[in-house]
Amino acid sequence: MSKKNAITPTREENFPEWYQKVIQAADLAENSETRGCMVIKPWGYALWENIQSILDKKFKETGHENAYFPLLIPLSYLEKEAEHAEGFATECAVVTHHRLAAQKDENGKTKLIPQGELTEPYVIRPTSEMIIGAAFARWTQSYRDLPLLINQWANVMRWEMRPRIFLRTAEFLWQEGHTAHATQTEAEAEASQMHDIYEDFLFNSLAIPVIAGEKSEVERFPGAVKTLTVEAMVQDKKAIQAGTSHYMGQNFAKAQDISFVNKEGNQEFAHTTSWGVSTRLIGTLIMAHSDDDGLLMPPAIASQQVIIIPVIPKPEFEDAILEVCEELRSQIVQQSYLGQPVRAKVDKRDSNAGTKKWDWVKKGVPIRVEIGPRDLENGKLCYQLRTEEPTQKYFVESEGWAAKVPQLLANIHDQLLIKATNLRDNNMVYCDNINDFEANWDDQGDTKWLVTPWAGSNEEEEELSKKWQISIRCLPNHDKLPASISEKLTHSAHCFKSGKSTNTLAIWAKSY
Amino acid sequence: MSKKNAITPTREENFPEWYQKVIQAADLAENSETRGCMVIKPWGYALWENIQSILDKKFKETGHENAYFPLLIPLSYLEKEAEHAEGFATECAVVTHHRLAAQKDENGKTKLIPQGELTEPYVIRPTSEMIIGAAFARWTQSYRDLPLLINQWANVMRWEMRPRIFLRTAEFLWQEGHTAHATQTEAEAEASQMHDIYEDFLFNSLAIPVIAGEKSEVERFPGAVKTLTVEAMVQDKKAIQAGTSHYMGQNFAKAQDISFVNKEGNQEFAHTTSWGVSTRLIGTLIMAHSDDDGLLMPPAIASQQVIIIPVIPKPEFEDAILEVCEELRSQIVQQSYLGQPVRAKVDKRDSNAGTKKWDWVKKGVPIRVEIGPRDLENGKLCYQLRTEEPTQKYFVESEGWAAKVPQLLANIHDQLLIKATNLRDNNMVYCDNINDFEANWDDQGDTKWLVTPWAGSNEEEEELSKKWQISIRCLPNHDKLPASISEKLTHSAHCFKSGKSTNTLAIWAKSY
Repeated sequence: MSKKNAITPTREENFPEWYQKVIQAADLAENSETRGCMVIKPWGYALWENIQSILDKKFKETGHENAYFPLLIPLSYLEKEAEHAEGFATECAVVTHHRLAAQKDENGKTKLIPQGELTEPYVIRPTSEMIIGAAFARWTQSYRDLPLLINQWANVMRWEMRPRIFLRTAEFLWQEGHTAHATQTEAEAEASQMHDIYEDFLFNSLAIPVIAGEKSEVERFPGAVKTLTVEAMVQDKKAIQAGTSHYMGQNFAKAQDISFVNKEGNQEFAHTTSWGVSTRLIGTLIMAHSDDDGLLMPPAIASQQVIIIPVIPKPEFEDAILEVCEELRSQIVQQSYLGQPVRAKVDKRDSNAGTKKWDWVKKGVPIRVEIGPRDLENGKLCYQLRTEEPTQKYFVESEGWAAKVPQLLANIHDQLLIKATNLRDNNMVYCDNINDFEANWDDQGDTKWLVTPWAGSNEEEEELSKKWQISIRCLPNHDKLPASISEKLTHSAHCFKSGKSTNTLAIWAKSY
Repeated sequence: MSKKNAITPTREENFPEWYQKVIQAADLAENSETRGCMVIKPWGYALWENIQSILDKKFKETGHENAYFPLLIPLSYLEKEAEHAEGFATECAVVTHHRLAAQKDENGKTKLIPQGELTEPYVIRPTSEMIIGAAFARWTQSYRDLPLLINQWANVMRWEMRPRIFLRTAEFLWQEGHTAHATQTEAEAEASQMHDIYEDFLFNSLAIPVIAGEKSEVERFPGAVKTLTVEAMVQDKKAIQAGTSHYMGQNFAKAQDISFVNKEGNQEFAHTTSWGVSTRLIGTLIMAHSDDDGLLMPPAIASQQVIIIPVIPKPEFEDAILEVCEELRSQIVQQSYLGQPVRAKVDKRDSNAGTKKWDWVKKGVPIRVEIGPRDLENGKLCYQLRTEEPTQKYFVESEGWAAKVPQLLANIHDQLLIKATNLRDNNMVYCDNINDFEANWDDQGDTKWLVTPWAGSNEEEEELSKKWQISIRCLPNHDKLPASISEKLTHSAHCFKSGKSTNTLAIWAKSY
């Protein structure tokens, strides 16, 4: 039987087009009438809810509390930190009026005309450093008021010129942590802790083996002193910045007067951090794991983890089969995976089992179960794993099978992580000189990640970025690099561009 | 010992001012730099998270799924339903530009100037009927695509001229359910089901004995055929609309072309509903339950349900007392109240026990526990209930006490509900003629709810509303009215204004 893929084109044929088609086939999201903004449909939104639930728990366990700050930021607030303001200025939605006049046109149709011009316009938050910082300034008098450990789940808006669903949309959903501390040590530890939480989440919940590291000065968040990032390689070898954590030094504290009286009675500025992940994680996991049959959801955040499909060739079987399916479902949801009840559903739609099966393949459910009349008779069921070929079936005793579901989910997670790790490790190349860099670049139809010793200047970085149409994704932490890279590292490396002696590495790649 | 209140002024002295002070003392929220918008602080946001968690579960149990739609609505979409457009036109924030030019002024300071004027302006959603309806139109071809049962948790914006924190803010958080159905019967049943869920939630989670009923035509949601509401009486006897559920008929479906081919092969318009509650529930519960010592949180949604205060007169007791406090906490959080682990915290701040106690009184924690050296010695603890006088203390064995916490929480809920029900029932008056209405009105310094037989016209309603500065809050369901009202109802009532024979009642009140 020749394999026919559910998604056209395939990844090989046209990766960007394949990505759009996977989203459509899985019914995750769609473009809307509002330029660059998406509608996140229930199957996609459930992924976000599961991401939220896992991260929110980690944030609270590490002492953070949720709060909510205004959507609209007065222009004058944005202006306070010049670098920050300039970093976001070109992509801000601006509110200039606060009402509409309803007028009837010649055909009696209602027309709405903007009225009530504001003295000071507002921008829709592209990020909330400035509005949260203003609150922190009010809340901080003494060292006893610190640290402030706040997180916000919210929508933000950046007017993207080339929107791409989930990865780069004008409006997106995210969490933004904002903290203020008495000392640099504490603030850096906070930024580092949240960076670790993201890295752990990407590995253990999304099965994506990100590379953790620091951004170069050129690539830093506008106004930050240090930006930590986790970078994911997806199947076309491009990099996606999956989550960032920034140590701001006292820059924002000075711009916003977040100051306090320390233990010695002296006035000091606080040290602040911010950190966030967004709905672009959904785009990342699609590009990391999905295949030519559609979506493949990592079990930890899957909208449903098990789908049960009743196979009903004749109406007289219906009641008995549905009953067994429901009974199986109730056994499965009593199981626990990663501390949560397993999510399972019976597909009772009025449609044939084959169509249903392909729907759930495309929607990426980790485990599919089918139960038909013969299974009923023999006390069996048939299950399939989304990580395997759609022809691979397992016929097993139904008695006691539910208890095995958590282990199957864990196996699927491991398979995804191993596959993604192989992809990553096979596509990172160490280049300690410009010829190697050039050779590896030229030799490739698609774009590997090039790892180089690096001590160049900002100008040199920008020159290389422009010439090769790539960027430094991060200066990686050495301890978690793939063996293929780390075994080549020596103690006396020299920057491949400037020739300066250095122990710092840079990862160069194309990115989304 | 004479009683000194924690909040000045008292409710009696100045209710609106008292309300602000309770919010401040409990650290729930504060005004921001953005006109009419609040910052919801962690203690207030936790209330919202608990409200979300209970309602979200009920929505999902009744078959609804969450999704997310764009924040910005093209003006042309709002214009499609004239009544709806006019209803929201005067309070819309309008986005007209999509970037800022960063310029340096003469002092080298960055100034941001709006640029990139949009061809078609957008409004920030005041509600999402029009943008969700546009999606429903795309999603609905056949009767098989119905019903659509969608909910969105989101921020919305209505430019309020007289903002009041939580009750009426320019930006607020809410959920908005939107559904589409094949038939009127189904859609009306949906609107009614959600109305019942709200009523149940107000009674059983917020301990607020709302009156359920239908809005008059004058007070209906713009564009709706029927608006169902739950109305809360708060301590100054004013009414607060706590949650509404609308049956839209085919009005929105026609404006947006939400149509489908029915079983008989004919094209039909769908019947739609929408329903929502918002962060104004927090304002409602504050006004319903709090007292002159501050906030009083209903146990079901309390940010913390039990606070444990270590009493440490000398440093040498600290370790032993903290250990016992933590041990008690771990016993308490293993208990379950309304299907959730009990929320408890040890207050380890560096401050004296008396100050701490009053902090938690003002913050409205249902149960306070104190443990000091003598308690430690005797295996005892001291607990207090927020619904009782701050001088009322219970000294009990600590062994096994944790297991009694769920029952204590249930008792507190009952006490709050009984008190609020008494308030409500003592302040509703049946008036079957205009003299009674006038007499009851004039006799009152504060404003009772006046219940009248009603069959008046819209003009008569508006005339009365204007004259008495009140409005019809709802046409209540008779079956759940207080006995004080229902015992006076006869089978042959006449409208107190028009004199027409009627079985319909109207509740007139001042409102927030």
